[in-house]
Amino acid sequence: MEDLNTWGQWLRTGLELAATVAFALSGVMIAARSRLDAVGLVVVAFVAAFGGGTLRDLLLDVRPFFWVKNAVFVWGILALCVVAMLFMRQRHFAPTERVIQLPDALGLGLFTAVGVDLALRQGLPNVVAVLMGIVTAVFGGVLRDIVCNEIPTAFRDHRPYAVCAFIGGWVFLGLLAVNAPDWIALVASVLVTAGLRLLALWRNWRLPAWQV
Amino acid sequence: MEDLNTWGQWLRTGLELAATVAFALSGVMIAARSRLDAVGLVVVAFVAAFGGGTLRDLLLDVRPFFWVKNAVFVWGILALCVVAMLFMRQRHFAPTERVIQLPDALGLGLFTAVGVDLALRQGLPNVVAVLMGIVTAVFGGVLRDIVCNEIPTAFRDHRPYAVCAFIGGWVFLGLLAVNAPDWIALVASVLVTAGLRLLALWRNWRLPAWQV
Amino acid sequence: MEDLNTWGQWLRTGLELAATVAFALSGVMIAARSRLDAVGLVVVAFVAAFGGGTLRDLLLDVRPFFWVKNAVFVWGILALCVVAMLFMRQRHFAPTERVIQLPDALGLGLFTAVGVDLALRQGLPNVVAVLMGIVTAVFGGVLRDIVCNEIPTAFRDHRPYAVCAFIGGWVFLGLLAVNAPDWIALVASVLVTAGLRLLALWRNWRLPAWQV
Repeated sequence: MEDLNTWGQWLRTGLELAATVAFALSGVMIAARSRLDAVGLVVVAFVAAFGGGTLRDLLLDVRPFFWVKNAVFVWGILALCVVAMLFMRQRHFAPTERVIQLPDALGLGLFTAVGVDLALRQGLPNVVAVLMGIVTAVFGGVLRDIVCNEIPTAFRDHRPYAVCAFIGGWVFLGLLAVNAPDWIALVASVLVTAGLRLLALWRNWRLPAWQV
Repeated sequence: MEDLNTWGQWLRTGLELAATVAFALSGVMIAARSRLDAVGLVVVAFVAAFGGGTLRDLLLDVRPFFWVKNAVFVWGILALCVVAMLFMRQRHFAPTERVIQLPDALGLGLFTAVGVDLALRQGLPNVVAVLMGIVTAVFGGVLRDIVCNEIPTAFRDHRPYAVCAFIGGWVFLGLLAVNAPDWIALVASVLVTAGLRLLALWRNWRLPAWQV
Repeated sequence: MEDLNTWGQWLRTGLELAATVAFALSGVMIAARSRLDAVGLVVVAFVAAFGGGTLRDLLLDVRPFFWVKNAVFVWGILALCVVAMLFMRQRHFAPTERVIQLPDALGLGLFTAVGVDLALRQGLPNVVAVLMGIVTAVFGGVLRDIVCNEIPTAFRDHRPYAVCAFIGGWVFLGLLAVNAPDWIALVASVLVTAGLRLLALWRNWRLPAWQV
């Protein structure tokens, strides 16, 4: 995404920021539901926010990590957690599925595109790049759920989640393949991924099941 | 394993393919038993098939991964999962322990030798090379079980599994140390590992227990 | 920690050895409580002992790992596990929380300082270095608990643990910043971390909670 140098770069950074906050909040909510303590809440927020990107960078052997290069993000998540904890102390605050859904869908789309982009720049095969996009977007949540000792939601609730990222990743790849400008590929794939996810939730789509 | 260049290389590739399919199927079965959805099933199949080798490569800092270099494997696992899902939809298909045992034993032997070999080529100490063989062979299953929120079978069912890999790994090392041809060391260690595993299952050997 | 070359180096190696044994024992105890078999016990002891440092080295892209460079540690943990298993077979041996507490507190302090030190030498930002110290000290236990299919104790028991490491890490950083000798920074931060942890256990300090 070479031509994102000016306002495009700002847009991308802004989107990453928004998605990171959304993922961290999903971690805060699940940690609170799992009755973790303050440390567990902070760690799970970290894992949810940075876990997917960090796992992707580990797999791609990329250093430094996003949050090492921008240590301000670490402070930001810490601050976010403190605010969330104060908020949860002051009033009864029942985190609902519904509150998580919208930011989660946006983060899903954003991180998928970012992950595919990074993998492509390393010259990886298309299908591996899409996998890396999915890892970026989905495995923060997967690691979050594993730490909270739950089967990852993404793997068991029969509602399309990683599947949306899979499709969005191929949209991103396809648009780049026809030489679409980077920002169009980015915006389109985010819209497709997040749109499919929200549509799936709204229309209550289910992944196919089988007899066991 | 330098002298595996001709038909030996084909044998090794074939063995890796067979073992990968076997491990992926073990993932499919456990995912189905854990009532995961289609995405969970695919991911667990991936983790079971590539998790051990990927963890080994992460630890040894080897890139690209096996499945990145040969992206066709990724498509293969996807196709395998689709076929398995169609099959499970058509008829009641109860995955049993028994079905998993034979391919699992073969994969155990194969991946152990491959892992030991790779670690030795990096000049690691013998005991670490054997550990890397065990990681290659056993930790796909370990990660698979962790994702399915179970205590890894390899760690709790008191039937020798990693122990067979441990012995097979030393057999491989020992044969190389006495300058046996690579393919003999490979075949012998696979036979020892898989044979011990199957013998252990057949004779119902148990690891020693203690009072708690 | 350049000036630790002579007896300081010995002190540090001795401390790492003691802490590694302590962490391995915590793994042995939890594995026995979770009724794992002999293989599970050895693996959990390994994960508890080397997991934190290995995860840190993975994140920092440092090779070879501590236990690869010093393969004698691998044999040491194996021997420790065999002795522990023989001991547990001979007499009824109920591992108690209390037995774990002191070695755990010392290991917490030691590994935190070691981790911060290593991260600083890589030129990482202060807050990331402290995180790496916490990862070194705490994530062996976290991975240990995840393998045993429990929510990590460090995240849910409301008793300060990682928080002590957080404070001790900043003490280490602060003392280096005012040009204190390395060994003073090391000893002081270990004393602060372990002291805070033991004080927290003794005075029964609790992390703040909230309504859910």
